[in-house]
Parts: sequence; structure tokens; C-alpha cells
Amino acid sequence: MSTTQQVYENYRNKLQQIADVKYAAAVLQWDQETYLPVKGNEARGRQLATLTAIAHQMFTETTTENLINELISTSDLTDQQSKNIELSAYDFNKSKKLPSSFVRKSSEVINKSFHAWIAARKENDFKIFENPLQDVIDIKKQEADLLGYEAHPYDALMNEYDRGLTVKETDRLFAKLSPAITEILDHIKQFPQPDNSFLHRHFDKTKQWDFGLYLLKNMHFDFEAGRQDISEHPFTTNFSSKDVRVTTRIDENDLANMVWSCIHEGGHALYEQGLPDEQYGLPLGEYCSLSIHESQSRIWENCIGRGIEFWQHHYPTLQSYFPDQLKTIDIRQFYRGINTVQPSLIRTEADELTYHFHVMIRYEIEKKLIEGSLNAKDIPSAWNEMYQKNLNIKVPNDKQGCLQDVHWSHGSFGYFPTYSIGSLYAAQFWSNMNGTIPDLKKEISLGNNMSIINWLQKNIFSFGRYYHSSELCKIATGEILNPSYFIRYAKDKFYDIYKK
Amino acid sequence: MSTTQQVYENYRNKLQQIADVKYAAAVLQWDQETYLPVKGNEARGRQLATLTAIAHQMFTETTTENLINELISTSDLTDQQSKNIELSAYDFNKSKKLPSSFVRKSSEVINKSFHAWIAARKENDFKIFENPLQDVIDIKKQEADLLGYEAHPYDALMNEYDRGLTVKETDRLFAKLSPAITEILDHIKQFPQPDNSFLHRHFDKTKQWDFGLYLLKNMHFDFEAGRQDISEHPFTTNFSSKDVRVTTRIDENDLANMVWSCIHEGGHALYEQGLPDEQYGLPLGEYCSLSIHESQSRIWENCIGRGIEFWQHHYPTLQSYFPDQLKTIDIRQFYRGINTVQPSLIRTEADELTYHFHVMIRYEIEKKLIEGSLNAKDIPSAWNEMYQKNLNIKVPNDKQGCLQDVHWSHGSFGYFPTYSIGSLYAAQFWSNMNGTIPDLKKEISLGNNMSIINWLQKNIFSFGRYYHSSELCKIATGEILNPSYFIRYAKDKFYDIYKK
Repeated sequence: MSTTQQVYENYRNKLQQIADVKYAAAVLQWDQETYLPVKGNEARGRQLATLTAIAHQMFTETTTENLINELISTSDLTDQQSKNIELSAYDFNKSKKLPSSFVRKSSEVINKSFHAWIAARKENDFKIFENPLQDVIDIKKQEADLLGYEAHPYDALMNEYDRGLTVKETDRLFAKLSPAITEILDHIKQFPQPDNSFLHRHFDKTKQWDFGLYLLKNMHFDFEAGRQDISEHPFTTNFSSKDVRVTTRIDENDLANMVWSCIHEGGHALYEQGLPDEQYGLPLGEYCSLSIHESQSRIWENCIGRGIEFWQHHYPTLQSYFPDQLKTIDIRQFYRGINTVQPSLIRTEADELTYHFHVMIRYEIEKKLIEGSLNAKDIPSAWNEMYQKNLNIKVPNDKQGCLQDVHWSHGSFGYFPTYSIGSLYAAQFWSNMNGTIPDLKKEISLGNNMSIINWLQKNIFSFGRYYHSSELCKIATGEILNPSYFIRYAKDKFYDIYKK
Repeated sequence: MSTTQQVYENYRNKLQQIADVKYAAAVLQWDQETYLPVKGNEARGRQLATLTAIAHQMFTETTTENLINELISTSDLTDQQSKNIELSAYDFNKSKKLPSSFVRKSSEVINKSFHAWIAARKENDFKIFENPLQDVIDIKKQEADLLGYEAHPYDALMNEYDRGLTVKETDRLFAKLSPAITEILDHIKQFPQPDNSFLHRHFDKTKQWDFGLYLLKNMHFDFEAGRQDISEHPFTTNFSSKDVRVTTRIDENDLANMVWSCIHEGGHALYEQGLPDEQYGLPLGEYCSLSIHESQSRIWENCIGRGIEFWQHHYPTLQSYFPDQLKTIDIRQFYRGINTVQPSLIRTEADELTYHFHVMIRYEIEKKLIEGSLNAKDIPSAWNEMYQKNLNIKVPNDKQGCLQDVHWSHGSFGYFPTYSIGSLYAAQFWSNMNGTIPDLKKEISLGNNMSIINWLQKNIFSFGRYYHSSELCKIATGEILNPSYFIRYAKDKFYDIYKK
């Protein structure tokens, strides 16, 4: 082995050990959300804090820096090795920009704000959250300054979730998206709503659970490299590409809740299972960005999982699980019922169209909070005004309004846009698949998803973090993100569902 | 805060952070035994190795040593604080005796031997295990030399599990125990065996699970500070005294398997839940020794959980869970059935009397292996000879003979004796309880275990690791370990069960 390869080996070992600690923390978090007994919470909190601190310290210590510096200047590495080093150097430089005193302060502020948010929600009183939230906003402004940016401080924060994403780009996307959705909603308003009350009949929990597993199997989720459990809020996590865990929740009076959260998390999970295992702990073993991650959940949840072809195959099975509830509902009524578009208060319960207004409202507020043209105290009125204007909805209280999401209390500013952008990517990938895979819809209607998996494996999964979202999109589809694909998809779909 | 108290605070923080890492590893191990998908095993192995190495490195680094050294010489600490420092110094000095090159070598040898044991069991071929096992024996001899001992190298190994335990003491105990058991077995041989075939009827898994939870609740296992899951081999683990987890296994054709493994692990778990929570991560928050830990499982499993009074309360409930299987079995028949004594091949399936021969045989073999008068290749014949002599049983193959236990493949030499010694402690504690708690048996027959819990909390749990087993026993019962209590208990019980 050459000296360079030996140093690379040391770098790889170091990164993989850091990954071991981070994944261990992820196991503890998974357990916290699924099985932890209530009194175990306090010790679990400190165990997680210790692991996080150790992983941070291992990454930022001089030995790591030296390994990266030694390798970044050599030409003696393979292309993949060079890319790993380049990305690690990027991560290292970013983490160096945040002094440990700032990191500590930040985590204290966020901890306080999270507990204030819990209390504010409980009391339905934004005032309780106002000052702790302003502290978070202030610290995020500082973080943006420390990280650096060219055009807008919010760019620095979005960059944490989707490298290269900017206000300029997001404004461009949303400027196309917003009027198009309004146009479709105006169309929809002319027609009566489908009856989807059948989704709220009583659906036995065990049968729902079994049907969820059936769906995951059909999606080619590998149960030898993962599992599903129950948690309050569905999520996907992983401890290697061979151990990917999804969770779901089951509401006996809401079949849709389980079915599409299961498919959504399944999409995230396929991405993690498809990442290159031999790159464990290295940048190329990681996902591209949160936007691309969300594209994977959305393509399954919406493009595929709310499509007529998918249910042509699965609806008879679903009916056999729940004959009493569904035998009088034909597939067309089912299809229209699961695609009902109806402006509503809660983001996580929104349909795939109005969902984007929930995101765009949060985006506009976040941008202003970070640039300083809005403060925490102004949020409720700004929020309520925009819900009125964009969704024609009156927000009855802050609990169902600006207190509904956990993100701000966690300091996750810049995260929301990736939800919508993920859907836009999904539609573009979906369009490309349909153009390049002959008979795709027929395959889906026969329950065969292998062509989809193969397309995703080839165009998305296999690259890990090699490309930025934008580059990946161009390689996969031939052009950078273009919201027209989503708009076309939405019009085709909803003009068919809502018509005379 | 005084300077000493500030240093103590630093020591406490350090130890607690090390505990965080160790407990995190325990969570990963728990998950490995309960929920880990099969392909996740490889990454889990490396994650565990990394956490173990980090915890070891944190404990043995100079900052830890300096904190301990600074505190060991001061008189400015409380009694409990001094004891923590004294025990940490003991642990530190012990770990310093094993150079890291030795620790690495040892873990390699054990890793190989474990895999060889798996293969040897699969093939039912001791030869596959022979050389790797001899390597483990050789490394354990080295370990004994490095750790140091006065009389016998095996003392150094037993000391790892029960500080202060020696060959001399164990020989003394077993020299009394062995003939007494032979005497009882000779008595038993004169009588026909009770019919316990009803324990092998078909018992529904879900109902067994529910009955197990019912038993744990009756034992005052705190389900807000713990939980039960399923695993192949039942075990107890904990991640703080507020998060204690037991596992069980359920065989539909063997009710006894679940019931007494559940009570056994429940006994271990009560000990962990009862340890002083404010001593998290410190020696006084830890259990006394493996012998005392085993006394806690055995007192519940055997003294209480195979007693007639326990079932006077619970048997009607058990019958209501399984009316078809048990309605014709009266309580006396049930009681005799669950206490059948019958020499058998497998330790983990043995009755509470012949169990000790399984342990004593292993002890004799281990002693000789470590002193060098026996080698790995001699094990099968030595084993089979002793089973013939002590239990009058012919061992048909090594899988059911000397390959049955995992312990040697793990390098756990010195562990087995604690199983028997734990039972002896249990009987002595049980005798003391019966002497000091008025109407104890009546309370138990009414389903009330609070006096037991209170006795254990006061005499065992609250001390943590303050005393050695022997000291603790003397404080709890007024004398050091005396096998007569077990012999008396066994004679009283089995002369009643086996009689005209």
C-alpha cells in the first residue's frame, strides 16, 4: 500500500469511528421514540448529549484535520477518494467556523426554546414561546454570519440542509409554483368535493399494521436490513445502509394516516438502503441533501402511491383486509377520495397541493426573521394573515397556527423549503421515469416496482453525496430543477379528478 | 464549594460521561438481542467495538488518573464519596495492569473462539473449538498473572465477578454442598417422580406473555422504569436505574420455560431498579457482585417463585389464563410438578438441586485449566466422566455436553461459581427474611411482596457496591455465607415433596 493509501486508510478509519458514535446516538434516539420507558428519559438525554459531544470532538480534533490536510493536496487518490476528502474538508471547515462556545450557547438556547414551545402549545399561548424563540432567531442570525453567505443570511441556513440552495433560487421556484397552485385551486373550487368519509370508518389496528408491512414489501423495503415500529410521529432513521428503520402511527379512524405515512417513510428508507454500503461513515455513503431525501418520500407517497395504477394493483388487497369498510367503494371513488384537495390548517395533514402553501408561508416568515424585518412577536399576525390570503382560512388559535411545528423550537430554520423542493424534484424524476421506462404505468398496475427501484438506484442512490442536488438532478433528468414538471403533473392529475 | 468538592464534581462528571458511553453500548447490545435486523449485525459489531474502546480510553486516560489521585489522599470527602474514590482507584489500578496490547490481543482471541464455538456446536464437533479455546485459556492464564493473586491463579479470575472470592472459599462451600445434595438425591430416588407432563401441554404465546407481565407487576417491577421484550436467551440489562430491561422467551409447549425465566430476570431487574439513582455512573450506583446479583434472581425464581405460598395466590390466576390445560391439576400436583428433581444434561434446564452439579463440574474443570493441570483437548472426557460420576448421566455428544455453554468461548472463566454461590446467598437471605418478617409466608400467599422488597431494598439494593459480597451478607444476615441455609431449605422442601 502506498503512503497516500495508508493515510487514506487512517482517514477512513477515523471517519468510520466517528460514524459509529453518531449511529450509536441514532440507535438511542430511535429507542427514545419507540420503546423507552418514561422514567428513562432523563438518563437518555445525558447519554445522547455525551455521544454527540464525543462525535463532535473526534471530528474537530487535530488528528482529523491533519489527515484531511495531508490528503487534500495529493493527486494519488481515486476519484471517489478525492471526493470524500473534498467533502470532509468542506464539513471540517464549516464546523471550524462555529466556535465551541457558540455551539454550547446555541444548544442551551434551543433546549430552552423547545421546552417553552411544549409549554406554549399546552397552554395555547404564543407569549410563552415568544422570547425563547427570539433568542433562537438571534442565534441563527449569528450562525449565518459565522458560516458566511453571499447574498442573503438565510442562504447560509438553507445551505445546511441543501448545499447550494439560495433565496434567489427558492424565490424563482416558488414564484412559478404559487400562481400555478392558485390556478388549480380555482379550478377545483368549481366542483363538488369527492366523498372521502369512507377513510374515517373504523379500521382495526392490527390489520392496518399488516397492510403497512405488505406495502413496504411491495416497495422492496428489505426487512433483513430494516424494520418497522410504532412511534408518535413517523420517521426514518438508519445505523448503516443495512439497518434502516421506519416507524408509523395508526389511527383506527383514519386509514389514510397510516397508509401514506408508511409509503412516505418507505421512500426515505429505500434511499438509505440503497446508499453504497462500502462507503460506510464516509461522505459518499451519505445522502445528497434533505431536498433529494424528501423527493424520495414524495415520489412514493404522491406520484406513485396516490396514483390510480398503484391502486389498480393494491386496492383489491386493501378491500380484502377491510371488506366491511370498503366493499361498496369502487376504485374510482377510492382514488378521488384519497386525492381530495381541501385547504386546511395543519401542514402535516394537508393534501399534496395546498401543502406547498403551508411551506411557502413558513419560508416567507423565516426569511424575514433571519434578515431582521420580522421578529418573533410578529409571527402570529403574519402567519394568520398569510393563511387568510393564500388558503382563505381563518386560524382559530396559535396551537393550530404558528405553534403547530416543532422546527423553529429546534432552530431548524431553512428546513421547510426542502419539503416543497423535494416534491418538485419528485415530479421531475417521475416525469423522466415515465419518459424513459416503457410501460411504467402498466408495470405499476401489475404491482411491479422494480423499474422504479432500478431508476432510483442508478440515478440517485448510487451517487451518495457525490453531487449537489442541482447537479444530481441534471445528471438524472438532463436539466436542473424545473417546477413545470410538478405543475404539469398536478394539472393532469387534478383536472382529471375534479371535472364534470 | 470547596476545592475538594470541585475536584470531586469533576471526577463525578468524568465517571458519568464514561457511564453514558457504556450504557449507550448496552442499548446497542439490547437492540442486537431483540430487534436488530440480520444484515445490521456487521455494522453493529463495529459500533459496539468503538464505544467500548472509547469508554476504556476515557477511563484510563491521565485526566481520570489525576482526579482519582488528587481525591484519594484527602479527608475532606463524605463517607460515600470516599468509598467511590476508593473503588474507582481499585478499578483504575486493575485496568492499568492490563496493557492495551494485551486487551486487543485478548479480544481478538475471544472473537475467534466465539466463532469457532458457534461452528463447533453447529457441526457437533469439539475439535473445531479445541485450539481456539486453548488460546483463550492461555490468555486467561496471562490475565491472571497480570492481575495478580495470592494462592491460586483462578482466584484472580473469580475476583473479576465477585471481589474477594477464592478457590479456598469456593472449595469450602462446595465441599459442604456436594455431599448434601447427593444425600437429598439419594432420598429422592426412593420415590416415584411427580407427573409434570401438564407443563408441556399447548400454552398460547400471547397468554403466556400476558401472564409474565402479570407476574412482573406482582413482583413490583416498575414498568415506567423498564420493559420486557422477547429474545432468544432471556437476560436483564439496564441503562440507568430508571431504565431496566428484561427479556423472556416463550415456548408454546413448555410453560415453565417462560414463567421461571420471567421471575428470574425480574429478580435481577428489581436489584437494578433499586440501586441508588443519585449514584448514576459511580461505583456506589453499581451492583455488589455477580454472586449477589444471582442471589436476587434465585431468591425470586426458587425460594419465592417455586414456593407453595406464591402459588396459593397465583395458581388460580394461572388456571384462569389456561383453564383447559390446568383445570384438572390441583395446586399440590402443580407444586410437585414444578419442583421435580431429575438429573439432566443441560444446565439451563436443570432443577434447583442438580443445577449445582452442573456448576461444580464446570468449576473443577476451569480450576484445572487455569492452573494448567488440564488442557482444552482433555475437556470432553473430563466432562463426560464427571457427569457420569456426579449425575449418573451418559453424555451422548459434546453439543449436549461441554459445548452447551457460551461462557468459555467468551473467556468468562470464573463466572460459573457465582451461579451456585448466588443460590447459597439467596437461601441465607430467605432464611433471614423468614426469621425477621412476621407472617411472611402468609403475606406471600395473599400476593403481597412488599415486605420482601423492603428487606431487599434495605439490606441489599441501597448499598450498591459499598461492600464485598461477604461483608454485605454479614451485615444483612449476621454471618458470612453459610451453605447450611441452602441445605436446610432444600431438605425441608424436597423431603416434603418426595415422601410416602
